[in-house]
Amino acid sequence: MLVVHSPASSRHDPVGYFRRGQVVEHPEQASRYAILLRAAEAAGHEIVATGDEGLAPILAVHDAGYLELLSTIWSRKGELPGIGEEILTGHFARPQMMRRPAGLLGQLGLYMADTSTPVRAGTWESIQGSAQAAIGAADAALRRGSAYALCRPPGHHAYADSAGGFCFLNNTAIAAERLRAQTGGRVAILDIDVHHGNGTQGIFWRRPDILTVSVHADPSNYFPFYAGYADETGGEEGEGANRNLVLPEGSGDEAWLEAVSAGVEAAGAHRPAALVVALGFDASANDPIGAFKVTTDGFSRAAEIIAAAPFPTLLVQEGGYLCEALPRNLAAFLSAFEAAKG
Amino acid sequence: MLVVHSPASSRHDPVGYFRRGQVVEHPEQASRYAILLRAAEAAGHEIVATGDEGLAPILAVHDAGYLELLSTIWSRKGELPGIGEEILTGHFARPQMMRRPAGLLGQLGLYMADTSTPVRAGTWESIQGSAQAAIGAADAALRRGSAYALCRPPGHHAYADSAGGFCFLNNTAIAAERLRAQTGGRVAILDIDVHHGNGTQGIFWRRPDILTVSVHADPSNYFPFYAGYADETGGEEGEGANRNLVLPEGSGDEAWLEAVSAGVEAAGAHRPAALVVALGFDASANDPIGAFKVTTDGFSRAAEIIAAAPFPTLLVQEGGYLCEALPRNLAAFLSAFEAAKG
Repeated sequence: MLVVHSPASSRHDPVGYFRRGQVVEHPEQASRYAILLRAAEAAGHEIVATGDEGLAPILAVHDAGYLELLSTIWSRKGELPGIGEEILTGHFARPQMMRRPAGLLGQLGLYMADTSTPVRAGTWESIQGSAQAAIGAADAALRRGSAYALCRPPGHHAYADSAGGFCFLNNTAIAAERLRAQTGGRVAILDIDVHHGNGTQGIFWRRPDILTVSVHADPSNYFPFYAGYADETGGEEGEGANRNLVLPEGSGDEAWLEAVSAGVEAAGAHRPAALVVALGFDASANDPIGAFKVTTDGFSRAAEIIAAAPFPTLLVQEGGYLCEALPRNLAAFLSAFEAAKG
Repeated sequence: MLVVHSPASSRHDPVGYFRRGQVVEHPEQASRYAILLRAAEAAGHEIVATGDEGLAPILAVHDAGYLELLSTIWSRKGELPGIGEEILTGHFARPQMMRRPAGLLGQLGLYMADTSTPVRAGTWESIQGSAQAAIGAADAALRRGSAYALCRPPGHHAYADSAGGFCFLNNTAIAAERLRAQTGGRVAILDIDVHHGNGTQGIFWRRPDILTVSVHADPSNYFPFYAGYADETGGEEGEGANRNLVLPEGSGDEAWLEAVSAGVEAAGAHRPAALVVALGFDASANDPIGAFKVTTDGFSRAAEIIAAAPFPTLLVQEGGYLCEALPRNLAAFLSAFEAAKG
């Protein structure tokens, strides 16, 4: 399997985020990148650093004002006297109050959904590098049939104009839009991260050409809470091109694999020119913030099910947090996928 | 001056909130209530504890689902294992993600705008008592010509369905709606807190009968950031019944009093049956989170300007944080107001 990554992924290394009244250790640490890269290397996959296609393919998905903010936050930190090594806000825009303030603190809350996306020196380089890895791997998947984008930070909770859930740029959405542009055909996204791919759903909500299917834990008491329900099927022109396959917390291999199969079937029915898999490993039974009980064997079987789909397939790394099973689950998935693709 | 208060105001005593990446000391402490009450007592004003008019006058302004949440948060804290003495969330609903989750943590973010409104044992009793003080004082103002509601926590950043900016129930809006119902006439609100009264504006945005005028610091780099600009003049039927008088940070007595005068003039042109003053003292030069340089003499002169308006007038306590000038500014305002009313 071709593994495309960006060395800049290690530069954003958040320390804390605000959760349930306290600042706690941030689960989306830079070491995720090193661990996943090492696991892929150890399994003998071909590793390449991504090129840089510039901002155009990112702007095809994201709001220009949002990108402008992301790329300048750290250089504007002088606007926040006394700020430390991480910038985060606790103020957020709401439906009834969405004016765009001039100051940095207010702009952060206009473009962020929660308190989980601290910005540090190097954050922009990391998120840009992560997006470039998705773009580079998308192009490679078309040439070679499949590729794995080792994206970090993850992206599927990022909307066109907002960060949230540890995500800044929606790598999966950027790659899907890239594949649509490169093929001229339709694209299907299958998101198997334990959390609903709310940002991806939001980005393609009105789009009939890009199908979004997400298999995830019931959001009624689990992040992202405010989207991801089964009755969300797309809007306007996009009606019918969004599917949420919702499972109860605690679901294990059988229920999960059945939903993954249904997702692959839905993707196939869309007759896509390419498939993007938003590949979280936080459905793992061992994940520190997960909600499912998927085993390493479960990930292998998911890979086989997905590999049976006869489309160029791009795997984009999403969540999956530090635990002993994380590198093992990646290695198992990639090896089963490659073996099944033949 | 008749001072109406609720002893329950002391029960909500938040310790911390999340600001710019850190949990910091909460400025909206219960001692504000005791200090303001003592200052009013020392100045010889008539002090009465409010009655309880029940939830109907609160529901005339606030969303039923929001009230249901506020009144049950603490009893549901078992839903958040490991939570301490204060419940706060870091996840917030956004325009594209507004589904109502079943769980407590998600519901908090649906009904809160920021990380400044921790809920503790006693919070509901305090905010309910604070609203009742506003209602009781509104009724008294109609009987006696004027009254002061010693509301705490404050209210003007609370929307019909959301908490924010240290506020839960919008005491000023509840009182204004009560006065409208009791008089059958129009009502004017003049908000002289240093922060824009965004919740009040939101609640009455489409209402032609209740004028909202707010004198405050430019929100482009100051809370509440996302509303409070001069071009916000009301919507639909309410077009023209909202005025924002925006002053630069650092403004002193002269500029502030000129805006207060303009606000009183706008209120008079509305020909109200009653006037509600959202009375913050955080325009003070000494306020720890303020942005203006208003002196104690400035507050006295503002009281005289407002007292000249020939309408039954209700003063509702909003912000104004712990500093040596806080009790002095209240005493000066009430005494000048009473003297001018004659």
